[in-house]
Amino acid sequence: MAADKDKVRSLGILEVRPSARVQREDLIARETPVTIFLNDEDLVTLLCTPCDLVPLAVGFLFSEGLIRDAKEIKTSFADRRDRAVWVETKGRKRQSRATISRRLITTGCGKRLSFADMGKGLEKLPRSREPLLGQAVVQPLMRLFQTASRVYTLTGGVHSAALAEGEDLVYFSEDVGRHNAADKAIGKALIDRGGPQGMILVTSGRISSDILAKAVRGRIPVILSKAAPTDLAVSLARRLNVTIVGFARGLRMNVYSGEWRVDARS
Amino acid sequence: MAADKDKVRSLGILEVRPSARVQREDLIARETPVTIFLNDEDLVTLLCTPCDLVPLAVGFLFSEGLIRDAKEIKTSFADRRDRAVWVETKGRKRQSRATISRRLITTGCGKRLSFADMGKGLEKLPRSREPLLGQAVVQPLMRLFQTASRVYTLTGGVHSAALAEGEDLVYFSEDVGRHNAADKAIGKALIDRGGPQGMILVTSGRISSDILAKAVRGRIPVILSKAAPTDLAVSLARRLNVTIVGFARGLRMNVYSGEWRVDARS
Repeated sequence: MAADKDKVRSLGILEVRPSARVQREDLIARETPVTIFLNDEDLVTLLCTPCDLVPLAVGFLFSEGLIRDAKEIKTSFADRRDRAVWVETKGRKRQSRATISRRLITTGCGKRLSFADMGKGLEKLPRSREPLLGQAVVQPLMRLFQTASRVYTLTGGVHSAALAEGEDLVYFSEDVGRHNAADKAIGKALIDRGGPQGMILVTSGRISSDILAKAVRGRIPVILSKAAPTDLAVSLARRLNVTIVGFARGLRMNVYSGEWRVDARS
Repeated sequence: MAADKDKVRSLGILEVRPSARVQREDLIARETPVTIFLNDEDLVTLLCTPCDLVPLAVGFLFSEGLIRDAKEIKTSFADRRDRAVWVETKGRKRQSRATISRRLITTGCGKRLSFADMGKGLEKLPRSREPLLGQAVVQPLMRLFQTASRVYTLTGGVHSAALAEGEDLVYFSEDVGRHNAADKAIGKALIDRGGPQGMILVTSGRISSDILAKAVRGRIPVILSKAAPTDLAVSLARRLNVTIVGFARGLRMNVYSGEWRVDARS
């Protein structure tokens, strides 16, 4: 429990069963507001699980297009007590909050957002066959992923995301929000090896257009989930050469786009 | 299918099974950018399931504190082809986009968001015993709710939310986003009967602090889900007299707050 104190909290609850009403302690996923300061400017407050805060900040800045690379960062540190992350970039460009609010509020920058706008700023991935997917990779990977979240096992209240290579979960993160979980994993890859390019993004959540956009910005060619994608994510993935695999459960999977990355022998 | 064309789209996919690879048509949940115009100002673009657009806009404006009441609205209409909703309020107050971007970006308005800030602007509900909850209500309600989403049955890709009275699901909505689904149901109640006050909010998703905040603004005393709450939602609910019931599955349920609304005989 001590290792999980940022992720899990114990609260007294009332459990109602057909034969009994029991007052007991229950483990609940933590959700905390955390503020990212970029070059001393209060940029954004995220509701998140208060762990992996530096990767969260780095992944968020990258996903929002405010940095292109972890090398742009001069210093970063998380103050858990104050629930804040400070990031200073080289050159200390002034990052206006207006930029980010405009991005989050209307990605179309004052116009209405169209399908074309959605893809704007997202560069096509190469139509490579790598990483090649087959059940020999997908099945053990999903099995590992499903059991990797101790916090989910304890609380049922978090999402998880991982960046994988072959059958290995190289970077793994948990968060009450599925976007934060993906940003944390991407942030870890940026800090540790310069980026998640070429890896497989595994998510416990549905694959919506914003998750697809995070993958494309990170040059991640494959998104894998036990859950469903949306049609907008699939349309964008087809145009941008991303492979979306949904409903990856047991020995079955649905391939929604980029099926040339699926091993014909599997 | 024709009735579901705003919610579901058919796309060709590759299904991989141990014994076969099958090219087939699959039904996928639709996700579309929809822009809300408030008094001719481009307010926000939401990624959502393009149905129930007027309730979505009304619920969103209410949840964000931009209207207090459906009566403040003079006209509203949705243009499905242009993926836009126009809302005009009486008096045509200028609603600055700055207000809403600040709310979405840092609810703390330039300061860091603290637990106290989270509760700010949220008024306590009365410590009433109504609506009284027992398995006689919760079990049939959850059974009805679980089977109500035809789009979930077809695609596995949407959340749903409902406002209920006793065992009846009075307002029901589906959306790729759990926040949108709740705003749509709340919007329907605002338009149809002036508001959701006193009703039960049923959600297919986890109960996080922002879902709790929507309930409190709508004077909704009970939130019910088969999923888990977060600790921040539970802390706020205890302070604001909201009953949170999670893991409502079969004959069991966990009561995280406001247990005085649970019928002792059940």
